[in-house]
Amino acid sequence: YKIAVLPGDGIGPEVMAEAIKVLQVVADKFQFQLTLTEALVGGAALDATGVPLPPDTLALCKASDAILFGSVGGPKWTGLAPDMQPERGSLLPLRKTFDLFCNMRPGQIYPAFADLSPLHPRVSSKGMDVLCIRELTGGIYFGEKGRSGDTAFDTQRYSVAEVTRIAEVAFQAAQKRGKKVTSIDKANVLQTSILWRETVEQVAKNYPDVTLEHMYIDNAAMQLIRSPQQFDVMLCDNLFGDILSDEIAAIAGSLGLLPSASLNGSGFGLYEPAGGSAPDIAGQGIANPIAQILSAALMLRYSFGEEAAAQAIERAVQQCLEQHIVTRDIDPKSTYGTAAVGAAIVATLQ
Amino acid sequence: YKIAVLPGDGIGPEVMAEAIKVLQVVADKFQFQLTLTEALVGGAALDATGVPLPPDTLALCKASDAILFGSVGGPKWTGLAPDMQPERGSLLPLRKTFDLFCNMRPGQIYPAFADLSPLHPRVSSKGMDVLCIRELTGGIYFGEKGRSGDTAFDTQRYSVAEVTRIAEVAFQAAQKRGKKVTSIDKANVLQTSILWRETVEQVAKNYPDVTLEHMYIDNAAMQLIRSPQQFDVMLCDNLFGDILSDEIAAIAGSLGLLPSASLNGSGFGLYEPAGGSAPDIAGQGIANPIAQILSAALMLRYSFGEEAAAQAIERAVQQCLEQHIVTRDIDPKSTYGTAAVGAAIVATLQ
Ligand SMILES: CC(C)[C@H](C(=O)O)[C@@H](O)C(=O)O
Ligand SMILES: CC(C)[C@H](C(=O)O)[C@@H](O)C(=O)O
Repeated sequence: YKIAVLPGDGIGPEVMAEAIKVLQVVADKFQFQLTLTEALVGGAALDATGVPLPPDTLALCKASDAILFGSVGGPKWTGLAPDMQPERGSLLPLRKTFDLFCNMRPGQIYPAFADLSPLHPRVSSKGMDVLCIRELTGGIYFGEKGRSGDTAFDTQRYSVAEVTRIAEVAFQAAQKRGKKVTSIDKANVLQTSILWRETVEQVAKNYPDVTLEHMYIDNAAMQLIRSPQQFDVMLCDNLFGDILSDEIAAIAGSLGLLPSASLNGSGFGLYEPAGGSAPDIAGQGIANPIAQILSAALMLRYSFGEEAAAQAIERAVQQCLEQHIVTRDIDPKSTYGTAAVGAAIVATLQ
Repeated sequence: YKIAVLPGDGIGPEVMAEAIKVLQVVADKFQFQLTLTEALVGGAALDATGVPLPPDTLALCKASDAILFGSVGGPKWTGLAPDMQPERGSLLPLRKTFDLFCNMRPGQIYPAFADLSPLHPRVSSKGMDVLCIRELTGGIYFGEKGRSGDTAFDTQRYSVAEVTRIAEVAFQAAQKRGKKVTSIDKANVLQTSILWRETVEQVAKNYPDVTLEHMYIDNAAMQLIRSPQQFDVMLCDNLFGDILSDEIAAIAGSLGLLPSASLNGSGFGLYEPAGGSAPDIAGQGIANPIAQILSAALMLRYSFGEEAAAQAIERAVQQCLEQHIVTRDIDPKSTYGTAAVGAAIVATLQ
């Protein structure tokens, strides 16, 4: 398997180093071959080449079977035009080029770490285990937009085909989980939401074992805080998914543990931690590598079909969590750093 | 002052009855005249006339100086076309007809009731006192939209003039409060957000005593949960304000205490509680009348300039809260009902 490794900025390179060690161990153990090739992205690429996604990097991604992405951005590169911004200028073209229409972001309140959640114990003790499925290549992100004189506009556009393919992913995911899909829209205001809702109902007919529920985005933003345990799979368009997946991450309270996958229809994917480049703690060896390592596990599962290896990584992470081998973001009293947590996961795997 | 009273559905009529008693007492005490005229809206209007906002109701509103709105909707009226839905079909035309471009929704964590908040005490004990200022007559709510075959679209449009007028309200409000405006956008993706951000920066120049900060909507959804005490005035477009104001209400945890005001440029306004019609508890005499009563206070302040009367109501409410004269949503052990809380506020005023 050929992997384009794009560490990026801030803590990206540090946590990526641990993910690579983990990948090499499972490749040995489960007997598959990995070719890992690094390239520049984000601020690092801006500094070296003047653009956040250089042609060489894009070419490498095209020649690979998956992208393992770190994180990008930092105070050094603020105030640039949108297309030049480290995050936006790299992620949006990658999503569009590879038709990565499906973003999956799990968010859990781990019982043993419920106290990480900023929610009240009476709420967080009931747990949360949400999978946010976000449409990633359509909607208002990519519709016609412009400025003329004193007015600007953006267009949100969705087709039945676009909604169908993301809805199918959501229902299939729900079948393997809690068997419930909550589809998010604003069908009392938006025409795209009415189409969204109708299409999701059509798709639901093929999944009679899954319960479908519709919820307005404003109510969903509220319900996630009041009783997050009511959700299983949340199905969102691009903009609503952007907002709710970050709200879910905040509720989980453990950004450093949350991976994400962005997939197309042929198994190609971009895998990245849900958190950012955290420039404030970069270079200190204290960043949490787990979200990056779990992102690598998702890559093994979704792009390479190496389910056993993916599960082995997830189990090893789980064991380290149980033994409280964690960085300071998870337990302020902990003395483990990035490399120590990575090494513990590697040791558990061996 | 002529007031169009639109109680609506569910708990609307019960809580409105208490607000009216309070209004009559302060009118006596502060020596002004109120003419209160009731009309149908929402589901009640649908049942009686077939539409959620009958022409008679609209005519009454036009002949009045302000609208005191209850709450609308319920299970009886679901599944209707958007224009016929009780809430959407009444609120959107009222906003547009009266150019109610400015929605103000305060959200507090009251120190004495911090435990109402679903946030962890380590967060909620720091308090929250946010005023969400939402643009209410533009954006994707009212832009061109449609459906053709298998595709639907919505357009978000904003002009410099539209952003300027709402930004000015936000900065003026901030001057009287914490002197900070956090403007919410998605300027890394949306052209309307770039215009929004530029325009807000222009307006900010006239308010050098107010600190301006920009925040992406996804980050704001996260930050509100992680540290709501960082915010003072949040300035949002129509869609982002819809989402964040409900998130703020959830964080406050006390929907029954939260009023809102929707204003135009000439002092006309629509005042309504932030919560819904709560059909599950309607008719039981247990609904919290405070949000409706505080909405009436906002009406006295913003539409009639009766600041002393508004403050008197707010103080009376505060005293009842301090004496724990509250309904069960605020204190499950309380035995006070809707009328008892209303009566206590009236007694305090007298
Ligand atoms: C950087 C930005 C364009 C991006 C988005 O809005 O999609 C980010 O917030 C994300 O969620 O990956
Ligand atoms: C009913 C609906 C159209 C409305 C809105 O989205 O503005 C409501 O959610 C609100 O916030 O007042």
